[in-house]
Amino acid sequence: MTNRITGFHTADVRFPTSRHRDGSDALNPFPDYSAAYLELETAEGERGFGFAFTVGRGNDVQLAAIEALRPMVVGRDVDEMMSDLGAVSAGLIGDSQLRWLGPAKGVVHMAASAVLNALWDLKARRAGQPLWRLLAEMDPAELVEAIDFRYLRDALTPAEALALLERGREGKEDRISELLATGYPAYTTTPGWLGYDDEKLARLSVEAKDDGFSMIKLKVGLDLNEDRRRLGIARAAVGDLPIGVDANQAWGVDEAIAWVNGLRDFDPYWIEEPTSPDDILGHAAVRRAVSPIRVATGEHVHNAVMFKQLLQAAAVDVVQIDACRVGGVNENLAILLMAKKFGVAVCPHAGGVGLCELVQHLSMFDFVSVSGTLEGRMVEYVDHLHEHFVDPVVVRNGRYLAPMTPGNGAQLRPQSVAEHLYPDGPAWVAPPAARSGSDALIGG
Amino acid sequence: MTNRITGFHTADVRFPTSRHRDGSDALNPFPDYSAAYLELETAEGERGFGFAFTVGRGNDVQLAAIEALRPMVVGRDVDEMMSDLGAVSAGLIGDSQLRWLGPAKGVVHMAASAVLNALWDLKARRAGQPLWRLLAEMDPAELVEAIDFRYLRDALTPAEALALLERGREGKEDRISELLATGYPAYTTTPGWLGYDDEKLARLSVEAKDDGFSMIKLKVGLDLNEDRRRLGIARAAVGDLPIGVDANQAWGVDEAIAWVNGLRDFDPYWIEEPTSPDDILGHAAVRRAVSPIRVATGEHVHNAVMFKQLLQAAAVDVVQIDACRVGGVNENLAILLMAKKFGVAVCPHAGGVGLCELVQHLSMFDFVSVSGTLEGRMVEYVDHLHEHFVDPVVVRNGRYLAPMTPGNGAQLRPQSVAEHLYPDGPAWVAPPAARSGSDALIGG
Repeated sequence: MTNRITGFHTADVRFPTSRHRDGSDALNPFPDYSAAYLELETAEGERGFGFAFTVGRGNDVQLAAIEALRPMVVGRDVDEMMSDLGAVSAGLIGDSQLRWLGPAKGVVHMAASAVLNALWDLKARRAGQPLWRLLAEMDPAELVEAIDFRYLRDALTPAEALALLERGREGKEDRISELLATGYPAYTTTPGWLGYDDEKLARLSVEAKDDGFSMIKLKVGLDLNEDRRRLGIARAAVGDLPIGVDANQAWGVDEAIAWVNGLRDFDPYWIEEPTSPDDILGHAAVRRAVSPIRVATGEHVHNAVMFKQLLQAAAVDVVQIDACRVGGVNENLAILLMAKKFGVAVCPHAGGVGLCELVQHLSMFDFVSVSGTLEGRMVEYVDHLHEHFVDPVVVRNGRYLAPMTPGNGAQLRPQSVAEHLYPDGPAWVAPPAARSGSDALIGG
Repeated sequence: MTNRITGFHTADVRFPTSRHRDGSDALNPFPDYSAAYLELETAEGERGFGFAFTVGRGNDVQLAAIEALRPMVVGRDVDEMMSDLGAVSAGLIGDSQLRWLGPAKGVVHMAASAVLNALWDLKARRAGQPLWRLLAEMDPAELVEAIDFRYLRDALTPAEALALLERGREGKEDRISELLATGYPAYTTTPGWLGYDDEKLARLSVEAKDDGFSMIKLKVGLDLNEDRRRLGIARAAVGDLPIGVDANQAWGVDEAIAWVNGLRDFDPYWIEEPTSPDDILGHAAVRRAVSPIRVATGEHVHNAVMFKQLLQAAAVDVVQIDACRVGGVNENLAILLMAKKFGVAVCPHAGGVGLCELVQHLSMFDFVSVSGTLEGRMVEYVDHLHEHFVDPVVVRNGRYLAPMTPGNGAQLRPQSVAEHLYPDGPAWVAPPAARSGSDALIGG
């Protein structure tokens, strides 16, 4: 009997994080971290999990986009899909009608990402391996097959990708041993949200340094003097530990240049999202003007064509992949390989809900099989909401420990899903007093 | 009493165009032209209409995104909104939670566009003017206020925009007279869909020339020899009339260059969408390599930041705005002004359903108040589905006649809406025989 996809279960899961102002930045004052959540099931009872991350309102729109992909998944032969996830990706992203809504960007692309990540989760579970290890053990030719090169060949050909992956096999076992022994470097954004007061900023900064993180990151962009003041507090707290700053797209190009240069005294390690994520030429201009402060972007960079140009234009020092923004594992493979070819470090965006759980696999694979180095590499870490996952990340001494459980880490605890269903789950209907207060903030 | 927005009525309207293979191109073999349709109503009974255009599947996702904007519109003071549509635009596009789904791209941006276009429709109706004339009569300072310059200032400052609009007043009355007398040039894509046979291609090409259109356009990109054969037929049919070719993103950069150069014998006027709409640097490379064949793009260019870069990188000869893709009239104003500053012609994308009705207003305003010229300018025209509009475009002698009815032209006939509601309208439930046949095609 052919094993087919029989279950395609979606859920609108939202965490009321805005009540505590966790996650506040220049453009996202009060996010409610949310997942447009997907569970796939096969006739034989296997499962795969994925989700699109959002910050609250619109999670229902995101879910509608995932639902629109249902007919392309349910009823399909599982073995056939698993053996050619490149074709599956091309089908989901290239659908002749849905692509009008993108193409390959925004809501429809994140929907494809959720489905593809769920399929990779299923593949890893079937192999009995954590995703990073599945990728590391896969045949390079099969990995290349998973990538859509249609718009990338002028920067990276399939033959070049294959050569990079073949070369990545050298020393692979040593790097796996190193990873299993000491984990992957992390930095933390926990101290730096705009909503936190000075005492909390200083205290969390010291704690982050003591915990062994490679960097702390501060949100900036609302008020230059205030940013200087807060950076001063953080710098005093952490000494020579790198401090990244993150403007979350607050500025135009010229404004970004002036502002970042106004923060030079505090030796920021990178400026993240100085301007629109779409502005490749703008990032290149900012990079030329603020060097040696590095330029980082990616959490809102919507596909590999954009990353390709950021690299071609020498617009970034740091590529910040996101596990859920682009077209799943497939498209992130392409981005990792392009970053390798252009010699640019990949330091993923994470945080939110579940982004750490997912993206650690991609960075670990990058270390083992693509970049081959930890130099200048680190994965973002935020200590929120991990308790809701079946296999939460483990961070020790400022490093992600390599996950050992089969899959990609996306599975939420069933109880957490039930509690945070929007709008009818217990987290949203009680307590009423707190609820109405938070609504007033959210509606601002 | 304050007049408020009281009605926000949406409808999933789809036309089963795939049954006749109208609109087929390299990446969109069987579109069902659709509108995620919006009717706004005020307490005083005034109305405003807008929509997002899609090609079928996903129209429900688009509608969900429009619905997500409902709380930002319903209950608001109409006069206040009308007097500062720039602030309204910033609020819709900048919502701190919804913007995660873009930002400013894809489904959420097209949703903002639908709402903004409906508000401009309302404004024009209240003024008793067609939209093009409302814009032409508005104070330049008010137009500048409608534009979000956050990410555009490195290419166009508010002061420059104001100066361009002030200069655009010179000779305005003469251009209005000219427009009213002879209309605005159009080109037609009617002959060139990939699904049409040779006889139909030749016949419609001759008709288009005889009708006085400025250009015909052919879809290309599936097979080079076939493209050469079809271009040969069209060239023989129309003599020295310009022929544009449109690849609908079929190619990578190097492939685009080789393919377009393979069509040189037939002297194409422009190559449209040679590659990914996101690939600014790619378009620049193509343009350098295929000159003097012009490069055109825009129907999938998702916002003004992308158009800014296409202009900065000298990547296009022709900017193809779309009335529904970017953030409504507001963002198209910015694009028109940037195109003027960079000296690039604007030739809008139209067709689909209602895109001609809407975008003609923007080109007419461009002629009257921004570019001041018709040189190299023309609006796309396709003779489909106009009968469903209350105020359909009128094209005579290959030119759009200036609309005289108040508003933006987006209002569908109520009967057309009712007949084409998806999935329960009569157009979709009958006749069953035709239906199942078309489904087989759509699912391909």
